[in-house]
Order: sequence, then C-alpha cells, then structure tokens
Amino acid sequence: MKLWGDKWNINAEIESFETKDDLIIDQELAPYDVLGSLAHAQILLQQSIITKIEHAKIRKGLKEIFHLAKQGKLRLNLGDEDIHTKIESYLTEKYGEVGKKIHTGRSRNDQVLTALRLLIKDRLLSVEKEMLSLSNNFIEFAKRYQFMPMPGYTHMQKAMPSSVGMWSASFAEALLDDLQVIQTAYRLSDQSPLGSAAGYGVPIALDRKLSAKLLGFAKIQNNSLYCQNSRGKIEAVVIIALVTILSDINRFANDILLFTMSEFSFFSASPELYTGSSLMPQKKNLDVAELLASKVKRVLGNYVTVVTTPLNLLSGYNRSLQDIKKPLLESLNTVLDCIKTATLLLANLTPNEENLTKAITPEMFAAHSVFQQVQKGSSFREAYQQISKNLNTVVLQDLPIVLRNSKNEGSTGNLGLRKLSTQLQKEVRATGKKRRDLDMQWSKLLN
Amino acid sequence: MKLWGDKWNINAEIESFETKDDLIIDQELAPYDVLGSLAHAQILLQQSIITKIEHAKIRKGLKEIFHLAKQGKLRLNLGDEDIHTKIESYLTEKYGEVGKKIHTGRSRNDQVLTALRLLIKDRLLSVEKEMLSLSNNFIEFAKRYQFMPMPGYTHMQKAMPSSVGMWSASFAEALLDDLQVIQTAYRLSDQSPLGSAAGYGVPIALDRKLSAKLLGFAKIQNNSLYCQNSRGKIEAVVIIALVTILSDINRFANDILLFTMSEFSFFSASPELYTGSSLMPQKKNLDVAELLASKVKRVLGNYVTVVTTPLNLLSGYNRSLQDIKKPLLESLNTVLDCIKTATLLLANLTPNEENLTKAITPEMFAAHSVFQQVQKGSSFREAYQQISKNLNTVVLQDLPIVLRNSKNEGSTGNLGLRKLSTQLQKEVRATGKKRRDLDMQWSKLLN
Amino acid sequence: MKLWGDKWNINAEIESFETKDDLIIDQELAPYDVLGSLAHAQILLQQSIITKIEHAKIRKGLKEIFHLAKQGKLRLNLGDEDIHTKIESYLTEKYGEVGKKIHTGRSRNDQVLTALRLLIKDRLLSVEKEMLSLSNNFIEFAKRYQFMPMPGYTHMQKAMPSSVGMWSASFAEALLDDLQVIQTAYRLSDQSPLGSAAGYGVPIALDRKLSAKLLGFAKIQNNSLYCQNSRGKIEAVVIIALVTILSDINRFANDILLFTMSEFSFFSASPELYTGSSLMPQKKNLDVAELLASKVKRVLGNYVTVVTTPLNLLSGYNRSLQDIKKPLLESLNTVLDCIKTATLLLANLTPNEENLTKAITPEMFAAHSVFQQVQKGSSFREAYQQISKNLNTVVLQDLPIVLRNSKNEGSTGNLGLRKLSTQLQKEVRATGKKRRDLDMQWSKLLN
Amino acid sequence: MKLWGDKWNINAEIESFETKDDLIIDQELAPYDVLGSLAHAQILLQQSIITKIEHAKIRKGLKEIFHLAKQGKLRLNLGDEDIHTKIESYLTEKYGEVGKKIHTGRSRNDQVLTALRLLIKDRLLSVEKEMLSLSNNFIEFAKRYQFMPMPGYTHMQKAMPSSVGMWSASFAEALLDDLQVIQTAYRLSDQSPLGSAAGYGVPIALDRKLSAKLLGFAKIQNNSLYCQNSRGKIEAVVIIALVTILSDINRFANDILLFTMSEFSFFSASPELYTGSSLMPQKKNLDVAELLASKVKRVLGNYVTVVTTPLNLLSGYNRSLQDIKKPLLESLNTVLDCIKTATLLLANLTPNEENLTKAITPEMFAAHSVFQQVQKGSSFREAYQQISKNLNTVVLQDLPIVLRNSKNEGSTGNLGLRKLSTQLQKEVRATGKKRRDLDMQWSKLLN
Repeated sequence: MKLWGDKWNINAEIESFETKDDLIIDQELAPYDVLGSLAHAQILLQQSIITKIEHAKIRKGLKEIFHLAKQGKLRLNLGDEDIHTKIESYLTEKYGEVGKKIHTGRSRNDQVLTALRLLIKDRLLSVEKEMLSLSNNFIEFAKRYQFMPMPGYTHMQKAMPSSVGMWSASFAEALLDDLQVIQTAYRLSDQSPLGSAAGYGVPIALDRKLSAKLLGFAKIQNNSLYCQNSRGKIEAVVIIALVTILSDINRFANDILLFTMSEFSFFSASPELYTGSSLMPQKKNLDVAELLASKVKRVLGNYVTVVTTPLNLLSGYNRSLQDIKKPLLESLNTVLDCIKTATLLLANLTPNEENLTKAITPEMFAAHSVFQQVQKGSSFREAYQQISKNLNTVVLQDLPIVLRNSKNEGSTGNLGLRKLSTQLQKEVRATGKKRRDLDMQWSKLLN
Repeated sequence: MKLWGDKWNINAEIESFETKDDLIIDQELAPYDVLGSLAHAQILLQQSIITKIEHAKIRKGLKEIFHLAKQGKLRLNLGDEDIHTKIESYLTEKYGEVGKKIHTGRSRNDQVLTALRLLIKDRLLSVEKEMLSLSNNFIEFAKRYQFMPMPGYTHMQKAMPSSVGMWSASFAEALLDDLQVIQTAYRLSDQSPLGSAAGYGVPIALDRKLSAKLLGFAKIQNNSLYCQNSRGKIEAVVIIALVTILSDINRFANDILLFTMSEFSFFSASPELYTGSSLMPQKKNLDVAELLASKVKRVLGNYVTVVTTPLNLLSGYNRSLQDIKKPLLESLNTVLDCIKTATLLLANLTPNEENLTKAITPEMFAAHSVFQQVQKGSSFREAYQQISKNLNTVVLQDLPIVLRNSKNEGSTGNLGLRKLSTQLQKEVRATGKKRRDLDMQWSKLLN
Repeated sequence: MKLWGDKWNINAEIESFETKDDLIIDQELAPYDVLGSLAHAQILLQQSIITKIEHAKIRKGLKEIFHLAKQGKLRLNLGDEDIHTKIESYLTEKYGEVGKKIHTGRSRNDQVLTALRLLIKDRLLSVEKEMLSLSNNFIEFAKRYQFMPMPGYTHMQKAMPSSVGMWSASFAEALLDDLQVIQTAYRLSDQSPLGSAAGYGVPIALDRKLSAKLLGFAKIQNNSLYCQNSRGKIEAVVIIALVTILSDINRFANDILLFTMSEFSFFSASPELYTGSSLMPQKKNLDVAELLASKVKRVLGNYVTVVTTPLNLLSGYNRSLQDIKKPLLESLNTVLDCIKTATLLLANLTPNEENLTKAITPEMFAAHSVFQQVQKGSSFREAYQQISKNLNTVVLQDLPIVLRNSKNEGSTGNLGLRKLSTQLQKEVRATGKKRRDLDMQWSKLLN
Repeated sequence: MKLWGDKWNINAEIESFETKDDLIIDQELAPYDVLGSLAHAQILLQQSIITKIEHAKIRKGLKEIFHLAKQGKLRLNLGDEDIHTKIESYLTEKYGEVGKKIHTGRSRNDQVLTALRLLIKDRLLSVEKEMLSLSNNFIEFAKRYQFMPMPGYTHMQKAMPSSVGMWSASFAEALLDDLQVIQTAYRLSDQSPLGSAAGYGVPIALDRKLSAKLLGFAKIQNNSLYCQNSRGKIEAVVIIALVTILSDINRFANDILLFTMSEFSFFSASPELYTGSSLMPQKKNLDVAELLASKVKRVLGNYVTVVTTPLNLLSGYNRSLQDIKKPLLESLNTVLDCIKTATLLLANLTPNEENLTKAITPEMFAAHSVFQQVQKGSSFREAYQQISKNLNTVVLQDLPIVLRNSKNEGSTGNLGLRKLSTQLQKEVRATGKKRRDLDMQWSKLLN
C-alpha cells in the first residue's frame, strides 16, 4: 500500500517507469534514511507525539532495517514505491500502530533530502581521505625522485629541463586545491533540511536544531522552501567538485599513457597492471590508465544532467528532482574507485632514469644560454635573438646542477615538498576529526 | 583464463575497476555478439579455416549461448573479463579445439563494435516504431479535438486563439522531423566493421561484404582504421537523435504539467496516472509527466560523456571507448520507455472544453481587429497603433468561425492532418520493412 | 520607435540587457532578413494588400538595405531593438506609408526564424563544400603516400604495421559520414516557417507555398505552432552536425601533434605554420593544430546552450530562444574556419618516410606469425599462445609486401580510394546543384 | 615583429585563425597585463636586471598603455599577435632598449595567466558585491511582504499555504550559499603564477613572494608546472560558481514568468519592464525575465567548453588553453549583467495581495486538518486516511494566524530574516575589505 492510501490504483506501467531505477538506488540510500528516521523519532518523543515505549519500538524496527540494508537483504520490489514507504510499511507490519506515527511532521520531501545529504557527507569524507592519501603518495614519489631529470614540455614539444619531482609534486598540489572544492561541497551539504516537510513547514512544533545536531549536521538549512529549491543545485556543486578531482586524474593518466609509449619509456608499470590483446601476442596495454582518463567524461555528463534538472522548474518540490539520485550516486562511487585506482597505479610506477636523462637534449638549454648572455649585460630580447640565430651554440649543461640550482619557489631546486606535507597533514587531521565526529553522532543514534 | 593467456596475472582490484560495469552491460550485448560470431564462423568456413563439422559445433555452442543470454542465464563473473572472452571460453570448454579457432581473423575491437552496431540497429528500429505510433496518436488526438478552442501563448502570455488540434498536431509533426535524425543515426550505424580486426586488418582473406550481408548490414564500413576511429562519434549521433525525441517529449510533458494545474485545468488525466503525497491528503500529482520531462537531461548528460570520450585520443582503439557502452545502452532503453510512457499519458488525457473555451478572452482578438482595419484600407502599422490605443474596442469573435476560417497552411482551419497521416504511413511501412529484413537475416543465422 | 508603439518607454538598462548582443549579431542576419522580406512583399502584392507601385518602393528600399548590410554599413544602435524593427523603420522613413504595410500578415517570430533558416542553409552549403574539399585532399594525400609505412597503434602502443595511406583515407571516409549528418541538418532547416506568424497563423490568406518557393525552401514547415516549437531543436541538430565534423578534425590535429613530436617526427609541417616562444629560442610550436583540436569543445559548449534553451518551455515563442542566435552563428563560423585551416595544415604536411619505416619494429608482426602458424594447421588460440611465449621468434617481414598483400576491403592493400573518390564526386555535384539552385532563387528576389 | 623574431614568417591565414578572437578579448585583458608587468618590472629592479632609470621608463610606458586601454584606445591589429607582444613592442618603440628587458625572466605563459587571474579576481569581487546587494533586496522584499499569503506548490500543484516572505527569503538564502562557491573560486584564483615562466621556472633568482604581494595575491601558486596544469581547471571552478548563481536567477525569473501569467496575476512588474509585440497590439511581454532565465544555459555551455579543454592534454602549456579566455570573459560579464538586471526586476515587482489570497483554497489545509486529528490522539497515518476520504470536511483556516503560528525555524512565522541580514552584513564587510585591499595594492603599482 502507498503512503497516500488506497483510493485509487496507479497504472502498473506508469509505476514501473516511475520507480524501477529508484528501487535499486534506494538500497544504497536505506541506511541513511534510517538515521534520519531515528533522529525524527527522537524529536517526536521530545514533543510527546510518541511515548517512550513507542519510541523504543520504532528504534528497534529502524535498527533492524539498518542491518538488513547493510547486509544487502532489504529488497525493494515493484509496488514498494520507494525506501521511505518501505520503512513505514515495515514498522507498521511488524510493530503495529507506531509505524503509523513515524511520518508525523515530515514529508517524503525532507525525508529523502535528509538521507541524501547524509549519504553525500559520508561519501565526501571518504573522498577527502582517499585524495589526501593519493596526494601524499605523490609527495613521497616526488621526494624519492626529486632530482631525477625529466623533459618539460610545452605545446607537446620539449621545452626546458624538469624533474620527476616537479612532475609528481604538481599533482600533489593540484589535489590540495581540489580539496577546497570538495570542502565547499561538503559545507553546502552539511545543512539539515529535516523539518522543512514538503517545503512549507508543518503546523506542529519540531526542534529542527536538535534533529540537525543528532544527525551531525553543522547547521539547519533554514528557509523551508529553499530546502527544496536547493535540490539539484547543491548536488551539482558536489559533482563538480568530483569533476575537478577527475580532471587531475585524467592528466595523470594521460601523461602516463604517453610516457609509457615505447617511443618514450619514461615510466614502466608493474606487469600485473597490464592487460593483453585477443589478437596480438606482443601487446601489453595499460588499460587502467585509459579508463582512469575517461571517467571524468562520465562524471561530467552526470553534472550536465544534474545541473540542468532543476532549470525552469517552479519553486517547490518537483519529481524531476528524483532523477538526480542516480547520477549523483554513480559519480560519488566512480570517484572513490578512481582515486583508489590512481593510487594503485602510482604505487606500481617506476621512472626509467636512463631514458629520462637521455631525453634531455641540448636545445632545451637555449633559454639558459639567453640568461647567461643577460648576465653578461645583453638585454633579454637581444640575447634571445642572438641565440635564436645560433642555436648550434647551445649545449647540454650539467643537469644535476641545473636542476638543483633552480631555486625559485616551485622550481626544481625548491619544490617546497616539506611545506606541502605540512599542509597536507593539517588537512588529514581536519578530515579525520570530521569523520570521527560524524561517526560518533551516528553511533549514538544507532545504539 | 584470458584470451591473452597466462603469462601474467592482472591485479584483482585493477581488474574489478576495469570490468565490473561491463559484466552487467555485456549480458545485454551477448545475443548480438553471438550473431556476429555466427557470421564470422561462416566466413571461416568459407575460407576453409574451419571444417563443416567444426562449423556445426561452433554454431551449436553459439546458439546455446544465445538462448542462455535471452533467458538471462548467462552470468558473467569477475575474472570473465568480458562477453567476448566468455564466448570463446564457453566454446572451448564445451566443444574443445574448435573454440580456439573462432577468433581467427578477428580482434575484440571489431567483434565488440559489430555487436554494438547490431544492438543499436535493433533498438533504433524499436524507437522508430514506437515514435511513429506516438506520432499517429497525436494525429488521432488532433482529429478528435480538431476545433476545440485552446489559447495560443507567446512569452507565456495569451496571444491568439488556437485549437487543441493545432497543439496536438504540432507534436506529430515534430516527431516526424525527429525521425529523420534517427534514420541518419541508423544509416551511420548500418555499416559493418567486421573484418577490420584491431583496426589494421588481418593477413588472411576474409569476405567482409559477405559477413556484412549475413548480419543485415547495408554496407561495410570500409577503412579498417576508421572503423575504430568512428567509435564514440557514431554513438554520439545515435544519442543525439534520442535527445531530439526527448526534447519534444519534454515539451509535451511540460505543457501538460502547466495545463493540468488547477489554475488552468485545460486537461485532465485518468486517475490511475496520478500519485499521492505522503503528507497532504488532497494532493494528486502527475509525477509521470515530471519524469518524462526530466529524462532528456539524463540522456543529454550521456551525450556529453560519449561525445567527449574520443576527443584528443590517438587514432586507433583506446580502452576509454569502453566507457561509451553504459551511457549508450541506458539512453536507448530510457528513450524506449519514455516514448511508450508518453503514449500512455496521451491515451489517458482529456481536454476540458469548457475551461479551454473560457480561457479565450477578448483581447486575444486584437490582431484580428487590426486585420479587419487593414481590409478596410488602413496600413497595417497604423491599424495596429489605432487598436493599441483602443484595446477596449476589441471584442470576442465567433470562435468556431475564426478557427475554421484560418485556412493558411498549418493554421487551425488547415492543419494538414491527412497529409501528415499519409507521410506517417509511408514511414511506418519503411520501418516495418527494415525490421522484417533484419529479422529474416538474423533468423537465418540462428537456424 | 518600437514596432509596438509609444504607449510606454522601456527602461534603458533593461533594453540594453535585452538587445546589446543582438545588435551585433543582427548585422550578419540582415541580408537574409531582406530576402525574407522581399518574398513576403511579393505575397502581399499577390494578395493585393500592396499595389505594384508600393511593391516597387518596398523592393527598392529592401535592396538598399541589402547592399548596406553587405558593405557592413547598416549600423544598429541601442534603441533600434533589432534588425526587423530597423528594416520597417528604414522603409517608413525613406519611403513613407509603404513601410507601414510590410509587416502585414507576419510577426517577428516567423520573420526572424525565416532569416535564420536562410542563413543556416547558406552556411551549411559552404560547410559541405569545404568539407568535401578537405575529404578530397585526404584522398589525394592517401594516394600520394599509399604504401608509405606507418605504425598502427592501439591503446597508445604499437600494434600492427599500417600505412600513411590508410591513416589519411580514414579521415576522408570519416568526413563523408559527417556529411550525412550535415545533410540531415540541412534538410530539417530547409522548411519555410514564413506565414506561421506568431505561431498561430494570421486571419488573411497568404500563399505559404509560394513564399517558400521564392526563398528556395524545399517545403513549408506546416504546423504554425510547430514552427516556433522547433526553434532550438533544429538549430541543435545543426550544431551537432558541426560537432561531428570538429571531432574528426580534433583527431586529425591530435594525431599531428603527437606525430610531429621530436620523439616521433613522423610528419613535418612547413615552417610558415609554426609559431615561436617568447622565452625559449629553440621552440617551434604547431599552435594551429592545438587550436584546431580545441574548437570542438567550444562548439560542444554551444550545443549544450542551444539544446537546453527550449527545455521546459511552454509551447509557443519564448524570448529565451533569442539566446540561440549567438552560439549558432559562432559555431557555423568557427567550423568554416576550422575546415579551411585543416585543409591548409594538410597541404603543408610531409611524412618522413625514414622515421615512419624505422618505427615499424619486429614485434608488430606477432599477429602475422600467428596467422602463419594457423595456415600450417594450428588453431588460432594455440598459435597465439605459442608465439606469445616465444616473442623473440617474431621477426620483421618485408613491409612493402605485407602492406600490399593485405587485400581485405579497407586494409592497406585495398583502401578503396577510387570508390571513395567516386562517392565524393557525386556529393560534390549534389552540393553544387543545391548551391546553384539557391543562388538562382535569391538572385531572382534581388533583381 | 613577433617576440620570437623574424627567422620565419607565419602564414597569414593561419595567423588570423590563431589570433583574431584574441585581439578583441585582449583589449579587456590589457589593464591587468599592465599590472602584472609593473610588478614584474619591480622584481627586475630588485634583482638589478634593470636600473632605476630603466624601471622609471618602463613604468611610464606601462602606465600610458594602461590609460590607453582604459579609454579603449589600445587597438590590436592582425600581426600584433597578442597583448603581451604588443606591450613589449610599445615599450621598445617608444622607450628603446628597456623594452627589450621587460620580458627577462618570464614567459607569456605565466604573464597571461597572471593577467587572467587578476581579471578574475576583479570581476569576482564585483559579482560578490552585486549578489550581496540582490540578496539584501530579497530580504527587504521578504520583510515588506512577510505575511502576505502565497500558495505553496509541489509537483506544480497547490500544496500548502505559504507567504511572499518565505518565497522571497528563499532566494536571499540561496544567494548566500552561492557566495560560498564564489569565494572558493576566488580563493583558488588568488594564487600568483608569476615567476613560474613557461612552467619550468627560470635560471635567475626572482622573488615570487614579493611579486605576488605587489599584485595583491594571497599566496604564490607554488609548483611551476602546476601553474600551467591548473589552467582550465580553476577557470572551470570560476564558471561553475557563476552557473550556481544563474541557476537561482533562473528559478526567480521562471517563477515570475509563471506568476505574472494572467491565469495567476500574483505579481505585476512596472510598465517600463515590458516589451510589446510586432503583431498583437494587446501583448505586454516580460522578455527580461525570459532572458534572465536563459542565461544559465549560455554559461553552462561555456563551462562545458572550459572544463573539457584541458582534458587529455599532456602536462605543460598547450595553446588549446587559449580558447578558455573567451567563454570565461563572456561568463563573467554575463553574470554581472544578470545580477544587476535581476535586481532591477525585483525592484519593479509588486505582489497582488488580493489574487494571492484568493489563490489559497480550502483543500490546501488538508495537512492542517490531519495534524489537528493527531493532536486529538489519532496516529498520523490514520488521520491522513481519514481526511483523505473526507476531503470535503477540510475548510479554509484563518490565514494570518496560520502563517504567523508556523513557528518552526524557516517556516512562515519564523523566517529568520534578522539572522539572515546579520550574516549578509558580515559578508558585505568581508567583500568590501577584499576590494579595498586589492584597490590599494593596484593603486600603489600604478602611482
């Protein structure tokens, strides 16, 4: 039976069209919905809408659902409508009358939004943790190969001498920038919509600040209408933060694909990372990097879906917003997979010093020759013209010295790895604290 | 075991990252892969690479796989790599040596592409059929309510009198335009890549024209390298054709959502199409229209994924292209669902003549008053200015006469429904013929 | 003064926000608007709404505007609203009363749409011509270097021997596929909306078929409401056809960027195609290829804008649709530039036979070795395993023979260049005919 | 002459293709490039690469260019290549030898990026200011009409009573969330790339921290390679922040378009905001809202362009990145226009109390009736079922009381406007401070 009763029956084909995707997604949403319901029940108890005994029954039932869901045993079938209906039905079937009280003072609109926000927060904290770990590995890689030479390219042509250290540290720094976008997405998601009901409040007193606190939200999302109007917008910011990470992973994967071509052989990966060809016995392909590179395009597509979904919709909830759930979840899961896989790829990567060194050819020192002329008194542009006309005078310079002497901030001789590590450790602690605080709140609800 | 042997073992996490999505999608791809394999086997027989007896065994095995797949019993598990590997393993395990011969002269690159093209063709023909049926229903609806008045809007404000007939026929005509985009997508997909191998041919003679014919392809896709380079591009055209249809369905659904608001009540839907609210007993929501409206955004997101996937890739196959399969399949399935659901929505829609008529208010005849002045000799702009200053002189005119007298092509009195029907029937026959021809070819392979 | 009179004055900031972009774009639209107005005037004459003398005056005035526009002398300023208002004002100011009659029986809605369609058709025919010319150059390039060896890559790793001929011909064939998408876009645009007025017809008789014929349209776009509802949708198909071309140009440019890296040096470009660095005297960058590669992303962005613009809009004209003009025009102009520039790049490209040949290394013949075993009686998979374990037995084969002997359709020894040429010439003639027919119609209107 | 000299001449068509867009955009970039050059000159002085006298000449020349640019008199023509070349040429032509020294120790790569970052910062601060002003106006509007009734909708159907206050305040709160995304974009842009040269540093000592400080950057962007690798990524975050704002403006505009339909007449706009029709004298269209609604789609398209541009590019500068400038600038300018125009629209909007009140119909109190039953002891679901079967018992309640009694946080009786104001004022002060600090730094450089 539907929450809205039995006055009419919905057409079965229509119902299938409306709910079949959701029935799968909602399995993943279920534990978070239980958390939201537990907090809501506590508010109902506080308001004496339910008794202590009723509250105990509801908690018992909800915890059963939580564990079924965690074990993948909570099956939703056609006709169940959604996880929210399912939860109420479960309680009513098993615990009788109290099940009919759990929905007092809320709507599925704030219920599902609360569950989604909890899921987002949970996943984003995992993303933070994994990306910090990957960033740390790039720093370690940079330390290990700090002065190993590597050609620096511009316009896909050799430009100036660089180092494996600089290359690797560039990704570490990139991820720390990305983290700021993730944190913004987290902050926007860290607002409790619970108590906003269908978008217009309810005519009974509910302590929204308390339910927010019970669930580990930093604050309530105040305006009830805005709770619904922010749907799609906030999820879009979440996905964009994921796109930002994946765009850096795309670059890493793409560099690796080029630099493991036999024409370069700057890096090798461990054998167990390769796949073979069905036709050509000699082939060893680094498919994993190709798939890491492409995922940003999948998640970008999801962004386009999510950001356009609320456009030109009237203020207030619209069922179109349901179509945000699938791309949102897929994006979060994809990014977690990708960061972990990129970490594995990096861990299995070895630079080939000989090839890297050999690839630094004399003409790459042309700018150095110009600066030597400048130091002898030429103007820069004249020295440039001079060298330009006599490129054959440009010769290989002592690479270790060149790399170490480049002492400007951010250059090969001054990569700032220690500072980067310090900054990273600060973020690791901050993320860890958020995770512990959230886990504590949720444990309280579940115990 | 992998097709590429047992010289090394792939890392399990990497393998999971690379294949877990595919293992699900490939279930859907399996029957088409069997068709491709059947055609390839026949070519191998023709070239005496396999004997008649071997051919018979292979056919037997492939047909078994076909039926397993159709019954959803062909389970792919982690380690199976993909459906293509699975098929070869199945044959080898069950029929011995012949399994090791099936891959002679092909690569997974042309194998998977062949299967995808067959799947696309199959689905697009279903799309054609369903959209023609929906278009036909719009024509029938237009005939039934040909002269039922309906306000015509511009800039979201009442503009001029129109009719339910014109409104409904606009969608019928729209779908016939969309059909041209679908047909272009079909034509581009109707090229056989089989025999192009990894993208560089094979050093044995294979009759590509014959395998194309056996599979029901209109022609071979000639250049072996282009077969692989067209991946992503042709699928993108397919998805764009689907977006085109969904953009018309979006408009239909959106119109319905507005026109079923209580402020309008121009149309009502059958009760069984509505859903209720968990909180507000009075609510009856037309969620189905909201979800029909949003799907275009999902498929647009899929387009963005697919069209960007091959960008900046080197000529020749790249594993990134694998990530096209999921959004492609989802898009095709979504569109089929949407067209059928839109058909159901239309079938359950009733215009409310009273409200529609009442909504035509006097000022909507202002342009008519201008033209009456023009007919008396005023210049248009002067008459316009005149009426503009004396809007109170504009009065309601006899609606049935106004609607019927509007005899310009495409106007309310001359909607061209019969011509539209004729055009549609021609397309129905063309689609039907393509389907029958394809079914015949495929039946031959399977019998 | 505005067409809608002087009863109120629009806020100047609002007007600037609404029209400033248009005032620039409309300069480009002006000649097409004149053509539409000339056809409309002829219909007014036919209906005796204007006299022969009035018609002559209007034609004179319109032709003056046409020439001003062609010379870039038709300046639109803030307050002019748009080109359509400007044209009526010009006629009224210079030729008096007749100016006030030109708008009889039309709306800006069908007027601007007519002009846009004419512009689209004009530009698409130029696109067709240029892409056929580029395709032809790829065929010629393929003929010139038909058997020049070139490594074939998969997964960014050397796979099998291929040829410059196969590589170049792949682009020729790609462009012929793209042409079909362009032709579909052309066909959808080749429908006259003139006479559909604001989307609901007009209460005077207008021969829509005649005006369509005068303007060179293949047919009328029948349903008046659909004329407006197709806005955005048809333009989106136009832009997608352009994206399709640019995705092939992206691949060409990207291949060139890789293959001109010093690590490959498979191709060189003429010196006059390179740019230099402000800092590094040795640098010679092929910026042109980098910019050719990126344009698809610009036009894809334009597609996203255009395709989403009509979503969730009520049936009938909406001013949001105006925002389609800028991305549409930019896309058409960008693509024309790109095809011409790609043609120039190809014309200045030379393959380096020595490097290309040297790049074909022994292991690339592993699949050939497998097939040789197969011909001796092994099963494919066993031969594959055998060679896989003994890769050192694989040796270089005679390249000219291997390339020429690969006789399957689409392979190096059988590229089908003649057939491709024949197909291309047929298209060249078809495009030429469309262009001549259109020019003839438009000349008639202007003379 | 080009910075890279006269050893070869670039093909004129290629040069036009490469630079024509830039020559226009760079006019807008010029003042920021001057600022960057002034800071760089100071570093060169500090390092004794130029003398005090040379420094004075360079400053004089740069300030001339700044004022020419501000007055729109700095014309770039074909052959000028870009603003960076132009500036060096100007200095060399007018001040001789010193012009040839200005580029010492930098590359166009860090030069253009520095200028872009300065432009972004400048524009984002304007965006912040304008959005805070708009948010404030929504709060004021909410205060003025705090308890004016307004129907609350879900699924585009009347749901529960709400207020103009809640509706307006929802946008104020939305903009404060958007501000966080803008601030993140600002923070990422607030890193100085100056001194990173072509992406690999320079072999002379340059005080990057000092130049960052002189330009008003919060910090240096450390890793030289990452400076270039962050291009496209950071700009994409900027644009996404703009999309976020525009998505809220889209909702506001869309609500207004619906609620000003004659079927609602919930709001009226001042006459000077309307435009008329060329055909229908009675029409008054709120085009401004239609155009406000569509702009998000334009800027979303720009995002897709910018975010995809760096994908699959090798680490290090690539000329494709140049194609980011145009969509970035257009997006920033569009958003500034839109926020100002939305502010104007809001300022000219009047709610129609009578219509709004009348629109609240009895059935909208069904949920209230349920809660009254709950308070009498029913379980929620039973009360719901009860009312559901007896909807005719639901009657209008005293609206002012209902709205004021809804005291939960964020509900009509407790909108939290004062808290919102306080929060907003804090942000106004923060933005103001950032602006003053930046202006002060830039004034120092220019004086």
